[in-house]
Amino acid sequence: MKSVFYSRFFILLPWVLIVIIMIDVDTKRSSVRNTAQFYLSRLGNAQRHERPALPVKNRTALPVIYAITPTYSRAVQKAELTRLSNTFRQVPQFHWIVVEDSSTRTELVSRFLARCGVPYTHLNIFTPRRFKRTGMPRATEQRNNALSWLRQHRSLKDAGVVFFADDDNTYSLELFEEMRSTRRVAVWPVGLVGGRRYERPLVEKGKVVGWYTGWRADRPFAIDMAGFAVNLHVILSNPRAQFKRRGAKPGMQESDFLKQITKVEDLEPKANNCTKVLVWHTRTEKVNLGNEPKHHQDTVHIEV
Amino acid sequence: MKSVFYSRFFILLPWVLIVIIMIDVDTKRSSVRNTAQFYLSRLGNAQRHERPALPVKNRTALPVIYAITPTYSRAVQKAELTRLSNTFRQVPQFHWIVVEDSSTRTELVSRFLARCGVPYTHLNIFTPRRFKRTGMPRATEQRNNALSWLRQHRSLKDAGVVFFADDDNTYSLELFEEMRSTRRVAVWPVGLVGGRRYERPLVEKGKVVGWYTGWRADRPFAIDMAGFAVNLHVILSNPRAQFKRRGAKPGMQESDFLKQITKVEDLEPKANNCTKVLVWHTRTEKVNLGNEPKHHQDTVHIEV
Repeated sequence: MKSVFYSRFFILLPWVLIVIIMIDVDTKRSSVRNTAQFYLSRLGNAQRHERPALPVKNRTALPVIYAITPTYSRAVQKAELTRLSNTFRQVPQFHWIVVEDSSTRTELVSRFLARCGVPYTHLNIFTPRRFKRTGMPRATEQRNNALSWLRQHRSLKDAGVVFFADDDNTYSLELFEEMRSTRRVAVWPVGLVGGRRYERPLVEKGKVVGWYTGWRADRPFAIDMAGFAVNLHVILSNPRAQFKRRGAKPGMQESDFLKQITKVEDLEPKANNCTKVLVWHTRTEKVNLGNEPKHHQDTVHIEV
Repeated sequence: MKSVFYSRFFILLPWVLIVIIMIDVDTKRSSVRNTAQFYLSRLGNAQRHERPALPVKNRTALPVIYAITPTYSRAVQKAELTRLSNTFRQVPQFHWIVVEDSSTRTELVSRFLARCGVPYTHLNIFTPRRFKRTGMPRATEQRNNALSWLRQHRSLKDAGVVFFADDDNTYSLELFEEMRSTRRVAVWPVGLVGGRRYERPLVEKGKVVGWYTGWRADRPFAIDMAGFAVNLHVILSNPRAQFKRRGAKPGMQESDFLKQITKVEDLEPKANNCTKVLVWHTRTEKVNLGNEPKHHQDTVHIEV
């Protein structure tokens, strides 16, 4: 009797252990899944070009952040895109819409995006030469092109937040956590802008009541392009809202756009009632290429 | 006889399975360890201040990259450190040595580092006013202070690579993979420097034989601070090697330092025989604070 009991016990024990181990392993793996996710996403990226960023299985309920980045060819372009992608790579549920000011999608940007590890869409539209003058607003065509793409490729079924992310600004990861919950239009402070350490919306009882700014305080929305985000549904429900060329005045791009889709009293203040700077309007110096050789070139071609 | 064989088989089978599963699990875990590591490191960071970056269990054989970053108080400082930490956070086995040009460790940098998610050591040393002139080499004291710290807190038992990472440059993640294998002194191209698109060591048969540069080609090592890394053992075995004030000429800091520890023919070329630009000598514009209010301040204090 006793020997039967022991033999059964020793036959069952290891099987029970196996089951326990398998359950344990599965639990632990799922906890590292999210952290590993962005590395895994790097592998499959080259194929992801122009495909929806929404995962096949709806593995998370987070709205996708669509960051619209106008860019143009210049010495520091790849450097700027490199450090930008180093930041964006860490933002979950992120889709980067890069719009080149160019008549074609350049090889440099195409190659860069294919390897950068951030889900993306690569667009291009050339700014007519007559608009490339000092005092003219910049990147109007590129931002509008990205808005058109969203209207064509996304529907009200998709949850998302749209943000205009210029390629030389500095973004903290916290900024994206803040903007993720944008219901209509969210606002927050921007550092190093308008000749001041920062500009910010002034908030009272959870409502925006004015602007702390050192420049053109008469603007209806005295805010930088990096200072707001818009829910994707607002972009889709206002199909004609866009950045204006006609009648646009310097520094009025943001106001001209925002007044088509919202009112000051409806703005949602983020970043602890607009008291934290989570994005900086940094500007990169133009590069001096005065010593670039005119005739005697290097023996190999090197992309910079 | 047959029944004895079967009973033994069925008793042994599950134990064999358990062993196989355990081996399998351990292999898979170690492969995600590196990717998960930097997220895990964020959690324990506030306590990690000035503690060795080497893990308690020697969980990986990768040498630690010690990045030495001199920094000083200015409008864009927090922005620069923010985007730098966004890059460094993704480098496994990384230890950031931040040295402030200041008589104290400032609150801004202390708070920033405690929250940045990168293992770090926070030092400070004030540059005497007489050295703060145009044409004088910069950050000499800060870099030397970091070298002293390494000599006091690391020994020949520790595997590491030392790199001088200024706070406004742009770094690709690939750069750190390249420098990780530095045996003595490794070199590679740097973008946007010396008045050219890039400077680089010229390589023949795996040896550095000259320099592609547009500026002072007579320098023994015509290379930017961002263009080389040194094995920790070389730093420790040359305890007197440091950056010089006395007799230092503009642009000669790198050469003065490198000739104390290596020869041109011993340099190890990285980045595909020095044909890929993986780091850029970007410069951030000084911020215009012309509209900063002199009397009428904001109602709250906001750190920028």
